[in-house]
Amino acid sequence: MSATSIPGYGFAARELPSSPVTSGDVDLLKATLLWSDDDDRYLRMAGEVLADQVDDVLELWYGYVGSHPHLVHYFTDAGGEPIADYLERVRARFAQWVRDVCARPHDDAWRDYQNEIALRHTRAKKNRTDGVESVTEIPLRYMVAFVFPITATMRSFLAGKGHGADDVEGMHTAWFKAVVLHVCLWAQPYAPDAW
Amino acid sequence: MSATSIPGYGFAARELPSSPVTSGDVDLLKATLLWSDDDDRYLRMAGEVLADQVDDVLELWYGYVGSHPHLVHYFTDAGGEPIADYLERVRARFAQWVRDVCARPHDDAWRDYQNEIALRHTRAKKNRTDGVESVTEIPLRYMVAFVFPITATMRSFLAGKGHGADDVEGMHTAWFKAVVLHVCLWAQPYAPDAW
Repeated sequence: MSATSIPGYGFAARELPSSPVTSGDVDLLKATLLWSDDDDRYLRMAGEVLADQVDDVLELWYGYVGSHPHLVHYFTDAGGEPIADYLERVRARFAQWVRDVCARPHDDAWRDYQNEIALRHTRAKKNRTDGVESVTEIPLRYMVAFVFPITATMRSFLAGKGHGADDVEGMHTAWFKAVVLHVCLWAQPYAPDAW
Repeated sequence: MSATSIPGYGFAARELPSSPVTSGDVDLLKATLLWSDDDDRYLRMAGEVLADQVDDVLELWYGYVGSHPHLVHYFTDAGGEPIADYLERVRARFAQWVRDVCARPHDDAWRDYQNEIALRHTRAKKNRTDGVESVTEIPLRYMVAFVFPITATMRSFLAGKGHGADDVEGMHTAWFKAVVLHVCLWAQPYAPDAW
């Protein structure tokens, strides 16, 4: 699926408000994560390694969510039934997020879209992009908790194309840092005064 | 240093309020982290491996904080000078935290003390335990960002006692999950209505 045909995908969309997160905030977060040029290089390498595996990654992640009723919950309607169309639309954007993590520079457009994604997890904007009536927010604790499965499960995919141990380790470390960086930005609307 | 002589260490102190986080919340977070009995076993193993290395771990972490002015900032006085006594008191509690992560069951006393630690990062209680006048809160984004350095730097210590690759991997995975679990709980006071 090309990025432009993904439902609700709005990277660099003109109507996006500016992120409250500044480029200086991002620079200090990246310093905190000991981010280096190697991490940029390894994320590009990960993008190549994952290119034809992203659907498999999402299949694994959706299997994980699907096997935990307390997580599927955030995709259910008022009667407690999972909304299939909602799950599929989010899956396509989640897959594109994997590609974007590996490919996008951390510029204004990137910050603005991370702010949009952040809001879409909260009462401010959840459900609206997809026109659904589901649970009104993802609690902050699950945003943080997802750092583990989204990081740990990626390793076997990064090792799946025959790269050496050092490259796999480098890609996985860069991925770990990138996931944490995104979750830091996505936490902003949960605590705007103490972010 | 024995736990009872650590300044401000208050695990199971009678005056602690009850945590707003329930045991059910913890159970669901641990399910989200795919927590298993193996993780408990590997944390106990990590506790043995780290027993005589905890001061070295803290030395590394304090070197990391010390080399980043935007992080030392949270230990400075109104004039921007680091408060040495404050840094040392926190260091002793941070070392005890490492031991506690490896050893403590996730019971009521553990939840109550995680709530106390959480509050000590926020405007509600920062500085008070140590009687200092420093910056009034640690922003949420740095609480989340620290998941990376606190996890990644632990690997070499876990590998430092000659255990096999499977045991090192098991201990490191359990440590990663445990760090994320603690940060989930410490995020609570930042977003009490959307936690």
